[in-house]
This record gives sequence, structure tokens and C-alpha cells, in this order.
Amino acid sequence: MNAVNLPPKTANTDTPGDVRRRIAAGEITGTTANLAPAHVQGNLVILPKALAYDFLSFCHGNPKPCPLLGVSEPGDPALPALGDIDIRRDIPSYNVYRDGVLAEQVSDLDALWQDDFVSFVLGCSFSFEGPLLAEGIPLRHISEGTIVPMYRTNIKTTPAGPFGGPMVVSMRPLRPDHAIRAVQITTRYPSVHGAPVHLAEPELLGIKDLEKPDWGDPPSMRPGEIPVFWACGVTPQAAIEQARPEICITHTPGHMLVTDLLNRDLAIL
Amino acid sequence: MNAVNLPPKTANTDTPGDVRRRIAAGEITGTTANLAPAHVQGNLVILPKALAYDFLSFCHGNPKPCPLLGVSEPGDPALPALGDIDIRRDIPSYNVYRDGVLAEQVSDLDALWQDDFVSFVLGCSFSFEGPLLAEGIPLRHISEGTIVPMYRTNIKTTPAGPFGGPMVVSMRPLRPDHAIRAVQITTRYPSVHGAPVHLAEPELLGIKDLEKPDWGDPPSMRPGEIPVFWACGVTPQAAIEQARPEICITHTPGHMLVTDLLNRDLAIL
Repeated sequence: MNAVNLPPKTANTDTPGDVRRRIAAGEITGTTANLAPAHVQGNLVILPKALAYDFLSFCHGNPKPCPLLGVSEPGDPALPALGDIDIRRDIPSYNVYRDGVLAEQVSDLDALWQDDFVSFVLGCSFSFEGPLLAEGIPLRHISEGTIVPMYRTNIKTTPAGPFGGPMVVSMRPLRPDHAIRAVQITTRYPSVHGAPVHLAEPELLGIKDLEKPDWGDPPSMRPGEIPVFWACGVTPQAAIEQARPEICITHTPGHMLVTDLLNRDLAIL
Repeated sequence: MNAVNLPPKTANTDTPGDVRRRIAAGEITGTTANLAPAHVQGNLVILPKALAYDFLSFCHGNPKPCPLLGVSEPGDPALPALGDIDIRRDIPSYNVYRDGVLAEQVSDLDALWQDDFVSFVLGCSFSFEGPLLAEGIPLRHISEGTIVPMYRTNIKTTPAGPFGGPMVVSMRPLRPDHAIRAVQITTRYPSVHGAPVHLAEPELLGIKDLEKPDWGDPPSMRPGEIPVFWACGVTPQAAIEQARPEICITHTPGHMLVTDLLNRDLAIL
């Protein structure tokens, strides 16, 4: 084996606990892609308790873009249902939003933690991309090492309190037969966005130009491929921008919470 | 209730046995659409025993277009696994092919029956169209009273003996969200063609003009709809044309075998 092909130091044999300890120790500072790959990685949203009920209602009303995997007790940095977690240190990078605007990125929450913080962990498409790859369905953004393109749509979320706004979707270009198979496979994973919400006709979603995503990198579509759209975990981020809470903390995109849950245990059939 | 809206004399309350008795008695001579609608209707192929093994192999090798529901003993007009059936009289109209060419249409097989005839009954899309309608997915050919359009494709069947040729597909125009739901619903019914084989890009199947189907009526596509393609029970008919058996008998399209099986019992999940 060529040295170039050696696995990274954060090898895939690390357990989720190993990964979190190395993150907390500052040994892992980049994205969590491919770390403990059999395990569920989650999106994080931290809000003061005064907004927690409305945000929980927003998740309940919009389960496809906001599939809730776990919620903490107020002020408690633990999430025992997801692992031995200290949410203040177990993520490599956090985005801090003040009044709905990104104010800073930090590597831990020691200085920012509040006794009324509630942590919400939401499912992420990483959990269904493994099963898609395992079934032989190529994913362009992974093979090309880019960030999946994401778009605001004309689909309105069901609002709750100050939270609302458009559903955001991620897009993967697929051959039509792979698109059909991808519907079947992702249907098995309702807690991580589930089946696509749309395919083939971006203009019906109000997407005018696939080459200009609102987040992520432009796609590289190939002849004979159609765009397939899944509800996206950036939807709550758009809702937070609209709600403009005094403070809100999320993970930095790609820098996820690595949980003890197994992706395979999320499959409903 | 207006007299115009009264149910037809062959009311939906007829059992499959009632329907078959009325067909055998010559009281029902038209298509079997909507008769005993909870029950499975099948495509019929009758071949001499000398070709039965190759045709059975062809079905086995091509389960999506040729899903086998039942096979008779040679020379026996009964199909006990599908109901109390006399295959010589229980279908309203039969097509008789000689050397692969349609030679005549008859209303019973009394004069044509041979002691070496084997009857094959194949699943039909009627069985999944009921569940699609029940889930609120409109089907244009049904609402407009036309015959679903069918097309030869560039997908080759797996040949067996003299049987081979292109896969034939049926096409239903659907909204993209309905197309996704239709993939989920028809996946439950693998014994009646199952999930679509293709969608959105007819030219990838070698279909040059959707308006010119090889069988059935031209579709009426509406803006925002995509074509969704399912493997079709006309595929074995195309294989028979290619194989040119001395004699082969099928049902006349739309004039199906009404079996005792319940569509709901075909669902695998």
C-alpha cells in the first residue's frame, strides 16, 4: 500500500467515543466525514429554554427536514440517549448566531455555556449516504470531494412560534434507475430525512438555476442524470435566521456530533 | 342517484367466481376492468409443452416484466391455485397467434384446445393501480378512459430458448412527488411488476417520441409531470412474436383472467 493511501490517523476503527475524546482534546479539528462511519452523525442546534418549545414544535411539524434524534435537559450538556457526550466539547467547531446572524466560530462552548441552554440533535444525510454507496449508487459530491449543493425551495415549512421559512433541500444527481433505487433505500431511513421530496423538475421547487446553489458547491450533472432532492438539515438554520434568537449555537457545517447510534439501527425495514 | 350513475350490471359486488361464470356463459364479453376489483387479474399465455420449459425460464429470467402467478399441468385447463378456473372459457376474449402473428380472436378455446397446452398466468399492473388510486395518486389513462401507453425499449430481456427481445414498458405521467410515492407503493408489489424501471428521461430507454406509443393510446402529459415507466406484461407478447411458435394463445388485451387472489395479499410489506 502506498503511503498516500494509508488511512488517516483518525482511522475508521475509532469508536464514536474515541472520536469524541479526540475532538474534545483538540486532536481532531476538521470535518467528521468518514469518522466512525457506521455511526449516526447529527446536526446540533442549541437554544435558550424560552425558545425550546417553539423549536421542538417546529421539528415536530417538519419531520422530513428536522428529524429529531435527541434533546437534552435544560442546562445539561449531556445527551445520554446518544452516547457519553459533553455537547460543550465533543464537536470540532461551533457556529454562534446572534440575532440570527453568524457572529463567530468557536472550538468549544466553555465560555458561552448558559444554564438555560437546550441541545437538539437532528438526523443528517450522512446516515443514508452510506447505505446508498453500499448498494452501488455513486454520489457525485463524495467522489469529487465537494459539498452537496443545497437550495431554498418554494415549499413552506409549517411554522411554530418565530420559526418558519422555506424548506431547504440537498440535491444529488443520479441516473433514473439509481433514483428509483435511492427512493427505496432512503425510505427505510425516515429519521434521517427519508425518501426524496422531489426529483427531475427543479423549477417546480422554485429553483431557477441548479448551478447556483444557496449553500454548498455547484453540482456536476452528467448526461442522462436527473436531480434528486432530499429535505435538508439546513432548513432549521434558515428558520433560525428568520427567528433571529438573541443567541443560537449550531455545529459548523460538516463538523457533526458523532453519536453511539448505529446507522443500521435507524432502518425501519 | 341518477340512473346514469348506477353501477353496471356486472357490479363490483360480484365475486371472482361470479365474474368467471358470467364470462363463461357469454354474459360478459368486454374488458374485465373494474370487475371484482379487489382481486388479482392476470395475463394469460398458453403454449405447447415443448416450449413450456423455455417460456418458464424466460419468466424466471425476467421477473419484472413477466411475474409468474400460476402455471397449469400440461393439458389441464384448471388452475386450482388461482381459483376454480376453466381456462378454456373463463376469459372473455382470446388472441390466437400462429407463427408469432395474430391469426384470430375467439371467445372460448373449445375448438382449439390441445392435450399438450400449458397455461401461464402473469401478474398485471391492474393490481398496483388500485393501491396507487387509494393513496390519492391520479392515473391519467384511468381518469380519461384510455389504454395506458406502452413502448418497446432498448432494455434487452434475458433470453431463454427462442424467447427474447426488448422489455416493453407502460408509462404513467405523474407529478414528481407522486412519482416518489408511486415508487414506494409499487415496491410493495413485486409479483405485479413492482417498482418502476425508469423515469423522467424517455430517450435513455430509446423512446424517441412519447406521443407515439407502440401499444395503447398516446399519453396526455401535463406541465410539471414526468413520465414514469413500469415493466409491462406485453413484454412476453413481444417475445412470442420473436419466437414464432406454431401456436400460442393469450388473452385479448384488457380481457384478463379474474382470479380468486386478493390484490392486498400480494403486498410484501
